[in-house]
Amino acid sequence: MAVTGPVTEVMRAGGSHIPDLLDRVEQRLAEAAAGHGALLAEHAGSTIAAGGKRLRPLLVFLAADGEEGEGLVRAATAVELVHSATLVHDDVLDAAALRRGVPTVVATAGRGAATATGDLLFARAFAELAVNGRADEIRVLSAASSALAEGELLQRADAWNPAVSLERYLRRCELKTARLFEAACRLGALEANGEPEQLGAFGRRIGLAFQLLDDVLDVSGPAARTGKQRGTDLLDGTVTLPFILARERDSELAALDPRSIDSAEAAEDVCDRIAATGALDDARARALEMVNEAKAGLPAGLSARQRHALELVATGVVARYA
Amino acid sequence: MAVTGPVTEVMRAGGSHIPDLLDRVEQRLAEAAAGHGALLAEHAGSTIAAGGKRLRPLLVFLAADGEEGEGLVRAATAVELVHSATLVHDDVLDAAALRRGVPTVVATAGRGAATATGDLLFARAFAELAVNGRADEIRVLSAASSALAEGELLQRADAWNPAVSLERYLRRCELKTARLFEAACRLGALEANGEPEQLGAFGRRIGLAFQLLDDVLDVSGPAARTGKQRGTDLLDGTVTLPFILARERDSELAALDPRSIDSAEAAEDVCDRIAATGALDDARARALEMVNEAKAGLPAGLSARQRHALELVATGVVARYA
Repeated sequence: MAVTGPVTEVMRAGGSHIPDLLDRVEQRLAEAAAGHGALLAEHAGSTIAAGGKRLRPLLVFLAADGEEGEGLVRAATAVELVHSATLVHDDVLDAAALRRGVPTVVATAGRGAATATGDLLFARAFAELAVNGRADEIRVLSAASSALAEGELLQRADAWNPAVSLERYLRRCELKTARLFEAACRLGALEANGEPEQLGAFGRRIGLAFQLLDDVLDVSGPAARTGKQRGTDLLDGTVTLPFILARERDSELAALDPRSIDSAEAAEDVCDRIAATGALDDARARALEMVNEAKAGLPAGLSARQRHALELVATGVVARYA
Repeated sequence: MAVTGPVTEVMRAGGSHIPDLLDRVEQRLAEAAAGHGALLAEHAGSTIAAGGKRLRPLLVFLAADGEEGEGLVRAATAVELVHSATLVHDDVLDAAALRRGVPTVVATAGRGAATATGDLLFARAFAELAVNGRADEIRVLSAASSALAEGELLQRADAWNPAVSLERYLRRCELKTARLFEAACRLGALEANGEPEQLGAFGRRIGLAFQLLDDVLDVSGPAARTGKQRGTDLLDGTVTLPFILARERDSELAALDPRSIDSAEAAEDVCDRIAATGALDDARARALEMVNEAKAGLPAGLSARQRHALELVATGVVARYA
């Protein structure tokens, strides 16, 4: 759980039941991948087994402080399945070869199989959550899934457009990232009869901060820590906050057509130029501000344990590779 | 409603409330496309507006004889949204230019936008159905959605393999087509407190027959009626029942590598050759047999009106362009 610093810190803060809950999610994820034919088991299984931080399931659990029932595990599994489905489809569109150091489904099985695998992971997410028998939970997950797709559409529509506004960028981040974080917290709160509105707002804010920092890391690297070439977004035509802020300060960057960035070296040069404007520090400061708002907006009635664990996760979001 | 002969016939048989229910589905489909940003409204809207037979919503309504509530309309809308999502993703994978005579989303907006549009239509389907607050309904739809994706995976895995077995072909048809027809009937029955098992079995059988006949029409044409070039499946590497049966009867077809069919003319020649073996008549006979089984398996307690309407739809499935 690189996002939160040493995993044990959040675990300890959240309670000793958290590692057990996360293990149960792994088990259910493996079952979701296994029950629908050998082909899916292979493709979805490799995606799921490749892991990731399981940050969204962790948020479900921390938002449901103390709760340990199967319904909670199903909710956490469903959120992670939606996230996995999105990753598989993103990889199809980017024709990505590797994710988390493992060959992607699209690389090993082709576009058709990968698109179908993503669809199946979506379907399994709703199947999983449906067992809880709660329409309010299905609504939360379907709203977040709709937002993810809408965000993806927005990203494609804005690709290669250097003049994307800050407002439009933030809207995209909200749709593509923040709404699923919000859903995770809402689901946890619903299962624990907690406060879905306020915990949902917490999730949305740290989700937004998470995406902002992701976009900073794409420019700052180091590649050895992020596992990605610097400037991947620039090469994809994805205009993010560092570039938006830097264009206001550097007239040459403002005049740059993203399509002219045609090699990894050129992308690194632009990254250096963006960094030189101070835009990365400003973007980090905005992310930190959102995290602080998230913490400040936590409900008053939380237990000290729950508050501390949620604050640790929030801090972890902006502390990555700091 | 080409599938059922004159649309008025099924309408009259099903009851005067059916046209009103179908209008309400159109309304809800338009709303589902409209509520999630201008881009989606454009892409999803064009897909939905292009229409189609609305056969699956009709099945929902006929399976719920007499029922007219909002829950039923939502269920029918959800089924059609899942169907639309699948079409959009299929078009991405086939890089299709037209569907129902209208430019596809992938043709007008690119792969990224089309993949996201399909994802969004899936998410809206579950959002729509979630309002009913019934976990049993969500399970039915998520199971069918999983089957669709599994069927798509199977089709991709079997592409270009002329030695696909009859059993495996039927399994693919069940997953890709029959399970959503089954879901439509089950949902109608659930909303009307009817018999989901038996009506579901009816839907599955006519869905299977529907797919078999689709595959016959791909070989037989006429293109002027089907709206598709003959032999499209052959050119896609999709091995279907007519080809499977014809290979058993014509040693030259048995020796044919599907990859060698590299032009529309070559595909038409293979279609003629398949037809000459009598395989199309046999495939039609199998479809008809399934339709008869479907009718025979209808629950005993149906009203005369409901039975008649369902039988008409079943007959229509195999009567297309006969």
